[in-house]
Amino acid sequence: MSLWENYIRKVVPYVPGEQPRKPNIIKLNTNENPYPPAPGVTRVLQDFDTSKLCMYPDPTIKPLVVELARYYGFGEEQVFVGVGSDDVLAMAFMTFFNSEKPILFPDISYSFYPVWCNLFSIPFKTPALDEKFKIIKNDYYIENGGIVIPNPNAPTSIYEEVSFIEDIVKNNPDSIVIIDEAYIDFAGASSLELVNKYDNLLVVQTFSKSRSMAGMRIGFCIGNPKLIEAINNVKYSFNSYTMNMVSIVSGVEAVKDDEYFNSTVGRIIETREKTKGRLSELGFTFPDSKANFIFATHNRVPAKELYEGLRADDIYVRYFDLPRIYNYLRITIGTDEEMNKLLDSLSRLLI
Amino acid sequence: MSLWENYIRKVVPYVPGEQPRKPNIIKLNTNENPYPPAPGVTRVLQDFDTSKLCMYPDPTIKPLVVELARYYGFGEEQVFVGVGSDDVLAMAFMTFFNSEKPILFPDISYSFYPVWCNLFSIPFKTPALDEKFKIIKNDYYIENGGIVIPNPNAPTSIYEEVSFIEDIVKNNPDSIVIIDEAYIDFAGASSLELVNKYDNLLVVQTFSKSRSMAGMRIGFCIGNPKLIEAINNVKYSFNSYTMNMVSIVSGVEAVKDDEYFNSTVGRIIETREKTKGRLSELGFTFPDSKANFIFATHNRVPAKELYEGLRADDIYVRYFDLPRIYNYLRITIGTDEEMNKLLDSLSRLLI
Repeated sequence: MSLWENYIRKVVPYVPGEQPRKPNIIKLNTNENPYPPAPGVTRVLQDFDTSKLCMYPDPTIKPLVVELARYYGFGEEQVFVGVGSDDVLAMAFMTFFNSEKPILFPDISYSFYPVWCNLFSIPFKTPALDEKFKIIKNDYYIENGGIVIPNPNAPTSIYEEVSFIEDIVKNNPDSIVIIDEAYIDFAGASSLELVNKYDNLLVVQTFSKSRSMAGMRIGFCIGNPKLIEAINNVKYSFNSYTMNMVSIVSGVEAVKDDEYFNSTVGRIIETREKTKGRLSELGFTFPDSKANFIFATHNRVPAKELYEGLRADDIYVRYFDLPRIYNYLRITIGTDEEMNKLLDSLSRLLI
Repeated sequence: MSLWENYIRKVVPYVPGEQPRKPNIIKLNTNENPYPPAPGVTRVLQDFDTSKLCMYPDPTIKPLVVELARYYGFGEEQVFVGVGSDDVLAMAFMTFFNSEKPILFPDISYSFYPVWCNLFSIPFKTPALDEKFKIIKNDYYIENGGIVIPNPNAPTSIYEEVSFIEDIVKNNPDSIVIIDEAYIDFAGASSLELVNKYDNLLVVQTFSKSRSMAGMRIGFCIGNPKLIEAINNVKYSFNSYTMNMVSIVSGVEAVKDDEYFNSTVGRIIETREKTKGRLSELGFTFPDSKANFIFATHNRVPAKELYEGLRADDIYVRYFDLPRIYNYLRITIGTDEEMNKLLDSLSRLLI
């Protein structure tokens, strides 16, 4: 072994959901949106003047920052944009979690959080969800170096009201509290309404779910200008030009088309509610989902068996071989047609 | 001041060259290519099926990895792709430079290197270039935690032969040596030919200069499979999906069109050689550039004065207010027409 091998950073990387390239599969394993992005995105790509590509993009990502600030009603100095919310969260962990005290996030949650802690050597503790998979607020009222609360939580799909989030933010004035709202548009009120009230709050959202743009990699966060300046400084110390020209212009188009956004989100919520009823009839139980997925367990057949059976039918859902949740499937809400095929397949598997 | 402010990472961010949005300026300040990307890039963007954007992109960036492996004659397991070579270098610094010994790079070089060291708490030393701005090989034969050599170096524009690089790599079997070849296509032989001979060598290149795609953010590195696996693991611990779908397909098109690539690189080299002659006539001296820029000083008029005079004429070049190089301008090679305007403006300023 060469000496240089000792200097390689040891990490346990995040394992993303499978991205099978087979045609004609039904892909309900990575919480993607089944509908295409807003029509303006197609237009702006087709009209894109590629001769501009020889120049660097705007390092401040200004057009998209301006559009998001306008849409959500904040100042431009309150918005940071990154290459998907994973990029935003990675930068935020690196920027804000440099205390020796552990940061806190739920034991069952987005499995990337401990990966970032490992990468950046951030100590962490994971308070357990209760037996109904709900976050216990009081567990976050202890000394800590920061807090991350996903709302709705994944993979549990449970949404907490803004007043619940506010209690956590208010009780931790010495910590930065990140609310990871990847699924908020399928749920209810956003904690964005707290941003101007609490300077220790950072709200993270993504274009990958409700805006049908996982393939374009756009995420953002909103907070007080001091937090945004700090995360921008770290970004400029990592890679000045993170967003390519095409994502910037197509992100702007996606935000502009509020009517399209509301209609696709509405369709997904409608399909989710129908799917809940049919899963119940088949003997499944699940927390009351407010996301674009359902976290379900069957009263008789093990989740792993169903996962494999569905796979044999070319239907992909997510299965986590982890304590407490090894008997659950995380099923993304697709189109009505896709859900019908899923339910048909499940019916056969449950005979 | 709130307590959480103590936990914010302190950084001194990299300052990219200005990106003025004024129309009709001549922009020779960030070493961009004046020609548009290959025609295939325009085609693939116009034909892009935006309905696919609702899905995540391929986290392994396989189509582009395959194309680069084919083009440069390596195995797929030897290629890593990132969001510009800054992303590749940031990931490489984070992955490979975890020794307590200082890493080494030249005192006059890419100003992002010390920024990454600061961000990741990597100790570093910067051996001085000689009085002709050349790298002194022997300075790198001391104990170190890694080495970064840009070739051609920037902003000096000086290229060293592969045998020179090989000596440094060979004399440092215990360190990972990164050769940053952002400008290699304007220069001469690449150190890629050493990759299969030395397992401690990583060669980094970019699409931002010779491939006219700064706006698309694509960079890559090639090395032994163990190095590539390690940097991929860190990438998957940071952000699984860094490259959007559009950059992946357009990157493939750029690599495929070798004829277009050779012709635009050839034109830039031709313009560079003509510009050298005319700058000499005006009383400038400069190292013999093998890059797409010239690093020039005038025998009478201070660089700062020329920089400001050019700016008043809407011609932007790069000026560094730094020890040793405060009397130099870094002038990007644009089109013949742009260089004529630059030279006309300089002639007037030198009267």
